[in-house]
Amino acid sequence: MTHRSGLLTDRYELTMLDSWVEDGSVGHPAVFECFARRLPEGRRYGVLAGLGRLLPLVEAFTFDADEVTWLVEQGVVGERTAAYLQDFRFRGDIEAYPEGDLYFPGSPVLTVRGTLGECVVLETIVLSVLNHDTAIASAAARMVTAAAGRPLIEMGGRRTHEQAAVATARAAYLAGFGSTSNLRAGLDYGIPTVGTAAHAFTLAHRSEEEAFRSQVEAQGPGTTLLVDTYDIAEGIRTAVRVAGPALGAVRIDSGDLAEEAVKARALLDDLGAPDTRIVATSDLDEFVISALADAPIDGYGVGTRVATGSGHPTASMVYKLVAVADSADGPLRPVSKKSKDKVSVGGHKTAWREYDDAGLLVRETFTIPGDPAPAGAYPAQVPVMKDGVAVHAPSTEEIRAHTAAALRRLPPEALAVAAGPPYLTVTRNSEEETA
Amino acid sequence: MTHRSGLLTDRYELTMLDSWVEDGSVGHPAVFECFARRLPEGRRYGVLAGLGRLLPLVEAFTFDADEVTWLVEQGVVGERTAAYLQDFRFRGDIEAYPEGDLYFPGSPVLTVRGTLGECVVLETIVLSVLNHDTAIASAAARMVTAAAGRPLIEMGGRRTHEQAAVATARAAYLAGFGSTSNLRAGLDYGIPTVGTAAHAFTLAHRSEEEAFRSQVEAQGPGTTLLVDTYDIAEGIRTAVRVAGPALGAVRIDSGDLAEEAVKARALLDDLGAPDTRIVATSDLDEFVISALADAPIDGYGVGTRVATGSGHPTASMVYKLVAVADSADGPLRPVSKKSKDKVSVGGHKTAWREYDDAGLLVRETFTIPGDPAPAGAYPAQVPVMKDGVAVHAPSTEEIRAHTAAALRRLPPEALAVAAGPPYLTVTRNSEEETA
Repeated sequence: MTHRSGLLTDRYELTMLDSWVEDGSVGHPAVFECFARRLPEGRRYGVLAGLGRLLPLVEAFTFDADEVTWLVEQGVVGERTAAYLQDFRFRGDIEAYPEGDLYFPGSPVLTVRGTLGECVVLETIVLSVLNHDTAIASAAARMVTAAAGRPLIEMGGRRTHEQAAVATARAAYLAGFGSTSNLRAGLDYGIPTVGTAAHAFTLAHRSEEEAFRSQVEAQGPGTTLLVDTYDIAEGIRTAVRVAGPALGAVRIDSGDLAEEAVKARALLDDLGAPDTRIVATSDLDEFVISALADAPIDGYGVGTRVATGSGHPTASMVYKLVAVADSADGPLRPVSKKSKDKVSVGGHKTAWREYDDAGLLVRETFTIPGDPAPAGAYPAQVPVMKDGVAVHAPSTEEIRAHTAAALRRLPPEALAVAAGPPYLTVTRNSEEETA
Repeated sequence: MTHRSGLLTDRYELTMLDSWVEDGSVGHPAVFECFARRLPEGRRYGVLAGLGRLLPLVEAFTFDADEVTWLVEQGVVGERTAAYLQDFRFRGDIEAYPEGDLYFPGSPVLTVRGTLGECVVLETIVLSVLNHDTAIASAAARMVTAAAGRPLIEMGGRRTHEQAAVATARAAYLAGFGSTSNLRAGLDYGIPTVGTAAHAFTLAHRSEEEAFRSQVEAQGPGTTLLVDTYDIAEGIRTAVRVAGPALGAVRIDSGDLAEEAVKARALLDDLGAPDTRIVATSDLDEFVISALADAPIDGYGVGTRVATGSGHPTASMVYKLVAVADSADGPLRPVSKKSKDKVSVGGHKTAWREYDDAGLLVRETFTIPGDPAPAGAYPAQVPVMKDGVAVHAPSTEEIRAHTAAALRRLPPEALAVAAGPPYLTVTRNSEEETA
């Protein structure tokens, strides 16, 4: 593992660079754009995440001498490109949608401007970070909506790569989860951490009562006791006997959660513990959480499904050249691929958002150079990097607030968990749609 | 990012530890086991991967002074547990299936033995690594089978977390992929890297011909030219005109690949370039690769679907306490959870494999202490860590050869891409199946 991010890159970025160093076009001005052609099937919106992780990785996008030597030995680059990489760092500009903002098919969520060489090599790191973190945040936001104010715990770290786990905790928190089980994310990002005990804890003791007593002695009666190792009703009786009515919560991790929650609530009330909360944690996702809306559950722990993007573990963002100059000081010309199944609009895009009188988002369009700005519209991008230095560094709490505010600008039907088409599709703001 | 792995952990591991430090059971002998209750729907077998990444992370499972202070400040652990963590490192033993081996529902792929405290805290890191890497290797092995000897390139790094990308390249290579686009994986693990150019490369030049000329000048005629930026047939004609009949390969990344490959092959032959290979790279997975078996395609590049486990991005491994002693020198007693929907067999399991006369794997069972070993069976586990020191360190090439050999011990129907039940389910080798 390394702090440098240069080699976290697909080989073809550097072979392209090598050709451009050799043919002299490496320093020509260029614009690359990151966007998604589509949302995952049935999703109405996406939540952009990862920018706060990406910008430091772009600043750290360098190569040490050993890495450059290895690239030459492997035949990836020649000596001239080796010299270029030895001194490389990105010195261009990046504009992007603020982290935590919504995006739709065609939203130009991130625009990289600089020389052809410095822009092209960022493709892999830009996509890795944004595709992963956005997939998590987009799934998490739907779970938050489904939970309707009840707190969500992210606990999926064990279901994904150990470093992806930390990014998962961050992205889920930005999207509105209340806490994470991941300690590294707690220390690195200041996210509240929670967690009390697994079944192993109960099993390791000679009895459930002994296990609960040990936990309550160490953590106090406000702790959460896992009551389903043997029999849930018996577990709840033992829990209240050991911790008293000040018991913080019971956790149920198996069975029919709606049915078990109703029985648990009645039993807790009966035992004089009406303030003891019920936390549910078995294979939850936005659909199960929606279905549990009427159950007396006070909080949800979500693991696998949030860490894997609830069926869509990657966000299908792409990174495309949209404009390039044919000399170091020439004008930018728009470019786009025109093969059979993928047609894109070329040119550097500026995205605009329009809101109705109630503040709801009603339209998102883009213009290219020469197009007039739509009246009454707000630019969607903000500067996030200037001359290779990050200039966008909202706190985790600020990003979280931004996401919450952005979601309030969608109508209820766009927030529903039920499948539907994208709430918006972003096209060019002009009468003639030309490719 | 840090080399220490201690905090890549769910909080509840440390709150359990805290209770055990307080109640005195932290040093009691214990056995934990990692296994999957099921394979992903339709899969016949899984391929265990990640051990070569996991063992160094277990050796690095420590906490620095600042981390311990933070854990105390956060109320995760008390002062006695803080002292325990300050000096912590795992000093126990681990046995496991060799990396790259097959596994089935119930296979005890990894067994951790040590004190209750040192075993419990490894749960998250063990599961993160094995669940991720195994999901990739299991999907990749099916793609390798579907490709029937044609080489596969792993190029999914941009679809997953930037560090998961490196692990993805490793896992896919172990399972039989021939190369990766990921440079970090090339340097760290010695995996062959490949990659030439994206559409951006062609678009940045004034013409496709100019782009191809630049690439051939930098990389020689043996390179792979991407021919579908504008029109595939025209692209192929230009490619052969520029590179000559020694052109290494053309890459097609769009359209109906079977149809385009047939046309491309005919055109290349017609142009006098019968040795120029055809590489296909658009949204491939094991099913598409199978469907392309008759197409004149010489190699496949697989991205999203390998990096996301072809629909199953995590392997559903769990880590369970199976035996524990009630004192520091007491005997191990088997334990198992017995709630409604999850019944496990307690006790330290030893797994056994049996082969038929043709060398095919026909049976996998386990025994617990007291059971006789099945006649003519081979133990499935090997020691991988002794007294906290890794003792299993096969090279990447050795693991790759092990996987290939293990796959040859399955009958053709188990290797088919078509959905089916697990080829084997691993149960206790005894006449009475008791839980």
